[in-house]
Amino acid sequence: MTTHTSLSTIEQEQRAYLEALEAEMQLFFDEQGELMAEVSAETLPILDAIKKLSTGGKRLRALLAYWGFRGAGGQADDPIIIKAGLAIELFQSAALIHDDIIDASDTRRGAPSVHRQFESMHRQQGFKTSPEAYGVSSAILTGDMCLSWSEMAFSSIPQAGAHSEARHIFNLMRTEVMAGQYLDIVSEVVHVESPQVALERALNVIRYKAAKYTCEQPLALGGALGLGTAHGEPSPLIDHYRTFALPLGEGFQMRDDELGVFGEPEVTGKPAGDDLREGKRTVLTAYTAMLANSADHDFLESSLGNQQLTLTDIARLQELIRVSGALDAVEQLIEEKSQQALGALATLQVSEHVRTALEAIAAKALKRSA
Amino acid sequence: MTTHTSLSTIEQEQRAYLEALEAEMQLFFDEQGELMAEVSAETLPILDAIKKLSTGGKRLRALLAYWGFRGAGGQADDPIIIKAGLAIELFQSAALIHDDIIDASDTRRGAPSVHRQFESMHRQQGFKTSPEAYGVSSAILTGDMCLSWSEMAFSSIPQAGAHSEARHIFNLMRTEVMAGQYLDIVSEVVHVESPQVALERALNVIRYKAAKYTCEQPLALGGALGLGTAHGEPSPLIDHYRTFALPLGEGFQMRDDELGVFGEPEVTGKPAGDDLREGKRTVLTAYTAMLANSADHDFLESSLGNQQLTLTDIARLQELIRVSGALDAVEQLIEEKSQQALGALATLQVSEHVRTALEAIAAKALKRSA
Repeated sequence: MTTHTSLSTIEQEQRAYLEALEAEMQLFFDEQGELMAEVSAETLPILDAIKKLSTGGKRLRALLAYWGFRGAGGQADDPIIIKAGLAIELFQSAALIHDDIIDASDTRRGAPSVHRQFESMHRQQGFKTSPEAYGVSSAILTGDMCLSWSEMAFSSIPQAGAHSEARHIFNLMRTEVMAGQYLDIVSEVVHVESPQVALERALNVIRYKAAKYTCEQPLALGGALGLGTAHGEPSPLIDHYRTFALPLGEGFQMRDDELGVFGEPEVTGKPAGDDLREGKRTVLTAYTAMLANSADHDFLESSLGNQQLTLTDIARLQELIRVSGALDAVEQLIEEKSQQALGALATLQVSEHVRTALEAIAAKALKRSA
Repeated sequence: MTTHTSLSTIEQEQRAYLEALEAEMQLFFDEQGELMAEVSAETLPILDAIKKLSTGGKRLRALLAYWGFRGAGGQADDPIIIKAGLAIELFQSAALIHDDIIDASDTRRGAPSVHRQFESMHRQQGFKTSPEAYGVSSAILTGDMCLSWSEMAFSSIPQAGAHSEARHIFNLMRTEVMAGQYLDIVSEVVHVESPQVALERALNVIRYKAAKYTCEQPLALGGALGLGTAHGEPSPLIDHYRTFALPLGEGFQMRDDELGVFGEPEVTGKPAGDDLREGKRTVLTAYTAMLANSADHDFLESSLGNQQLTLTDIARLQELIRVSGALDAVEQLIEEKSQQALGALATLQVSEHVRTALEAIAAKALKRSA
């Protein structure tokens, strides 16, 4: 009964935060729109694309920052955590825009990806030269703009100045995710090494591109803002946050990778088996390469990254990933990460209110149906 | 004689600044290299590419920031203007990396552009899938990393906090240049409107993509840091800086555009007539379209953006740009901008030392041999 009451209080508080974040975002977009219109109204499609992309999404990162902030003593309606959430979500939009160019993804959250939107605009307006090149160029600039806006939002927080731990975390987060993203594209082009090396590489990509970025650093960032920690100052709470959020993020990403292979298009907003077509190298594909028989292994290797995969091919790949035992192996790994995360959460020095909120986020992140 | 002595003092001071900037940059790269190596040594090609690109260049933007700072009372060896210079130059590197993807440029400063470097690496390492796609993806991420690093350098300046005018200028500068860059690619795809509209568009691109970014904002930024101006606080010196640096930047960019058409490869580090092949729409091409006879006009329109242009085609284009009177028209415009800039400089409330330094920069920027 207590948990029930507390969950509804938490949901209410969370909703209030997300609404404040949405309002801040709209205000921010309005201000940027005025600046851009001064340059030329022709530049406004950039704003429109960022707006459309940024109003969707689960806001997992912003919510972790929020509860990290609250757990560290921050007030529910403090503008600094709203601005931090805005900075994190705009960074995520920027990353998605450029990711979709890199992965040649046609769709994002059920809508055309940004480079495809500009490509369509080129065709509709009857522009000259290549629609594809125009789409990519425009999306590169749109991502750059969004990246700058993210920083603009972050630097508007007076408590995130040059010597703060929050600034340090925000900087590190960006370097890590971009390095992790590069590592990811390297993993798609290198020739297969030993399955063990491929697995280690996939785990490393997950750690830097996903787990630290999606869970660990947002929670730590919120904590640092809540505590007002200076860079270099020891902080047991932030350290403890990390022991909870890193395995949470690893588990979450492995779930997400399962979804990229087995997820229904209605759930993922992407075509079935899209990650296979894109040639994404994940812990799941690494385990499959390790465990599958030789014929299946060869079929997997020749299929990953083949844009022409049919639904039959995809069904066969799904089947062999299952039969090889790779899916079970990943499930077990997720279970381990989940235990680590929940174990750390149980002893976290935060109020029961915050712990319950983090539990709910963890449950949602780890138990998404694949 | 006085001028002579003063010029050598100025050069010495400028050299000391550029050396300090170089040292700061190396230190910054070393620190980032350590972080990246922690992710994986495989990510270090990103650092190498940024390093190689950033150690070249004229440092025009950093020098304008420096003299803006000195003119506003800043000390010659103050670390804040070294960090600001680093932030500006890293931003420029990021912009160049993405520009070269957008313009499909093979070379930059006489070396292969970043996407071409990664493309070569792909071939040398015998990687799988498309070298071109890998080159572009890697360069997108390298530009993103560099953009983040620029911001990291800027936010390490305690005097550039949330409410400072310097922060405001840095933010605005980024929005303007990205919007201007988008406007530039739009100008390459829209169908020709009236020559007057094309000219206005070209002038707008120059203003936002080049003049404000290359001259006006760096000088204003240095001034704001030197004065310690809060955002919104009136500042006659910064206003006066702008009336000098905006026309300076416009004149500079028109010179640069002439160079893109008439420049020798040894001077530009790019093939002859490269801007014509890329289909760059400039004030020079707009004037040509306006003034050329119908046959020449048609040849110009069918040639701009044609990657297959021969040296003979380029020579014919150079000739028709001259004969149409467009080159003279642009020369006259540069002369007007030059007069405006020098007029404003003459009454600027700065020491003669700073004025002489700015005069030397202006002379160099405006008188580059085409």
